[in-house]
Amino acid sequence: MKRARASSARVAAPLPVPAWIARKRDGDELPDDAIRALIAGATDGSVPDYQLSALLMAIVWRGMSPRELHTWLDAMVTSGDRMDLRRVAGVKVDKHSTGGVGDKISLCLAPLVAACGVPVPMMSGRSLGHTGGTLDKLDSIPGFQTALTPRAFERVLARTGLVLAGQSPRLAPADRRLYALRDATATVESIPLIASSILSKKIVEGADALLMDVKMGRGAFLPERSRARALARTIVGLGKRAGLRVVALLTAMDQPLGRAVGNACELAEAIDILRGGGPDDARALTVRLGAEMLVLGKRARDRGAGARLIEGAIASGAGLEKFRACVALQGGDVRVIDDPRRLAQAPREHLIRSSATGFVTRIDAGEVGRAMTLLGAGRVNKDAAIDPGVGLHLHRKEGDEVERGDVLALVRFADQARLAAVRARLEAAFAVGPKASPRARLVLEVIE
Amino acid sequence: MKRARASSARVAAPLPVPAWIARKRDGDELPDDAIRALIAGATDGSVPDYQLSALLMAIVWRGMSPRELHTWLDAMVTSGDRMDLRRVAGVKVDKHSTGGVGDKISLCLAPLVAACGVPVPMMSGRSLGHTGGTLDKLDSIPGFQTALTPRAFERVLARTGLVLAGQSPRLAPADRRLYALRDATATVESIPLIASSILSKKIVEGADALLMDVKMGRGAFLPERSRARALARTIVGLGKRAGLRVVALLTAMDQPLGRAVGNACELAEAIDILRGGGPDDARALTVRLGAEMLVLGKRARDRGAGARLIEGAIASGAGLEKFRACVALQGGDVRVIDDPRRLAQAPREHLIRSSATGFVTRIDAGEVGRAMTLLGAGRVNKDAAIDPGVGLHLHRKEGDEVERGDVLALVRFADQARLAAVRARLEAAFAVGPKASPRARLVLEVIE
Repeated sequence: MKRARASSARVAAPLPVPAWIARKRDGDELPDDAIRALIAGATDGSVPDYQLSALLMAIVWRGMSPRELHTWLDAMVTSGDRMDLRRVAGVKVDKHSTGGVGDKISLCLAPLVAACGVPVPMMSGRSLGHTGGTLDKLDSIPGFQTALTPRAFERVLARTGLVLAGQSPRLAPADRRLYALRDATATVESIPLIASSILSKKIVEGADALLMDVKMGRGAFLPERSRARALARTIVGLGKRAGLRVVALLTAMDQPLGRAVGNACELAEAIDILRGGGPDDARALTVRLGAEMLVLGKRARDRGAGARLIEGAIASGAGLEKFRACVALQGGDVRVIDDPRRLAQAPREHLIRSSATGFVTRIDAGEVGRAMTLLGAGRVNKDAAIDPGVGLHLHRKEGDEVERGDVLALVRFADQARLAAVRARLEAAFAVGPKASPRARLVLEVIE
Repeated sequence: MKRARASSARVAAPLPVPAWIARKRDGDELPDDAIRALIAGATDGSVPDYQLSALLMAIVWRGMSPRELHTWLDAMVTSGDRMDLRRVAGVKVDKHSTGGVGDKISLCLAPLVAACGVPVPMMSGRSLGHTGGTLDKLDSIPGFQTALTPRAFERVLARTGLVLAGQSPRLAPADRRLYALRDATATVESIPLIASSILSKKIVEGADALLMDVKMGRGAFLPERSRARALARTIVGLGKRAGLRVVALLTAMDQPLGRAVGNACELAEAIDILRGGGPDDARALTVRLGAEMLVLGKRARDRGAGARLIEGAIASGAGLEKFRACVALQGGDVRVIDDPRRLAQAPREHLIRSSATGFVTRIDAGEVGRAMTLLGAGRVNKDAAIDPGVGLHLHRKEGDEVERGDVLALVRFADQARLAAVRARLEAAFAVGPKASPRARLVLEVIE
């Protein structure tokens, strides 16, 4: 009897997870040790999903203080391995976008910045909701490997100054678990959770600095400017506190960026930009973001000088060659770079025509993104396959003049039933009116 | 290919659960079909726990409209079987308490009401947090069966006009799953979730009317009067909409009710009340609640007449005989009724003495409840065993005069280490001051 009593007294008390959830639910701060225990439990599975998701919803509700968020991020960063890129010389700069429609900028930006001498260790994600994902676009290149071991990641970066990969399962495992759960429980839309998720990945991948492209507008994940700005500020402040230099740009995502929406066709458009072509807005944003990254990477003393270096790397073809070298090292078929017709293309075409004469007043990026996702360019759920050849090509952009009957966009698709299901939605994304609205600015704010 | 396409088009879309959670998160109302699908998914397990818990936290945050709550309750009620008590004559009236410390009223109240001719089909719960549970108190009776089949439940009720049982797993299964999840995810404290959980159980058990005892004060589940009143109003309104007549009383739970806290000792106190004894406050509340139930059951034209009937059933011993008949029919050892020394009693005693001379100004029911739970009278987690013999007996109540060194309470316990762990807490629950505070009223509000 004595032994039994003594042993029952020695049993470690279970974590008081419901009490911690209750604290957050009631708007109180969590102590550091609770945050570390919760993240450790998320990593090793000892805190069950149903408790984590209730906690996440309470965080969506109540937010996190800067102190809580710093601890939360640090616990995520130390939840797994961390890349050591010290053997790669230079200030390593990554870029992250909160996600948009037609946002293929990373694909041309990263090679251009690397070509200017700033190493770019880029770990990207898959398409999410109505927004595209760089990894899915890269999958359009036959053979291209984005699942790299930490050694291979470092080797490719050391050889070319550029690596384009997916997140390794051993890096920030807590983020992986929480991210999957957030997606399934409507707890993605929380500024502290978004900020800590992004930064945990960037810190463990070994970046020294980060350029954040925070999208705002109809097609953005956070449409309102106030929310986008709050996210940008949180990321900049939290990143600095964690030792990562961060600059954030608020950029427009009302209409799709560039002219292509879809995986293979966006890759083709990025290659066009590397060749000196491509649509004005996507090319201009590439130069602008590249200039910012060269300043962060200490290769340019200011944005003007940075922009000139990026334009030089386009004109000389150095960016294109950098991309080719990276594709080759990561096992991809480099022939698609010179001959984009080798890229997948869905077999059928549908034209969206203007029903009036006037000016294009709206191309709703959110609606275009959702319709294209349903058509197969994105994932309606985690296990859905993407059709890389499904895409949309804009013949007109906002502000352009049109005549009744002119083609506004060309849709490439595979499945007639799916097209029928999204056709009305897609057409409703376009509006034509009698007056041209002023062209919107691309970069709306810089937060540093 | 055509077949494959056709079949993929025929696959039913998965429930858009994250979109529904997002709606609630954003403060919008859920449509009826979403609520029904969610409750169906909670019942058959097709909606995973982690989605339900995020939804529950969003409901804690945003609440539910009367329309949403009515649908939610109806879906819970129809999630499983429903008792049919039409063969039992009379208006069947149940009583439910939101939980208190020392609240043994159900044990004496139900037999008294039944003795006055109103059938009482009572399904009770286990101890929860720092509050006791009627089922755990009934378990102090050797052999007493609370897990009854619906047939046995109806048979006992038909024979004696009284049945004291636990919730059947086939009744309101959605509530069982949600309840377990809420307990583990800090989502219990939501007025619509509490109201619908209570009412779903009462409706499926076949009650026609319900008397709600909503506790408020230090030892109550919802200490603040405004929250307790909001819960009472929600239950009364929601119950009426669902066809159940409900009257709610807001009653004081600042100090423990009566003098006994613990399972076997509370049963003994309830038997004392049936014998015409027992502490003033517990007996008075029994009469008051019984009067209310007789009015609901159409046996008394008003509360005064009802109170006289209850007092008569105490004086005549009819209530005690009713309890005896019910215990016998449910397999319990009736000898404990005549000889309460047969009930379990923990072997050790500890006296709590007054450190000053004056008046007892506070006996914090919440702190007493929490300390007694840790001592073994309640459950620190779902799987913990209760020691029915652990208990506390108050020698003084708030307002009583004491001299320094007088015994305030006697604690019965089994484990010296556990007592040492809670002793300071238990002692701090008592306060003695120079002035007697006015005696608090027991019934603070009636909501009907």
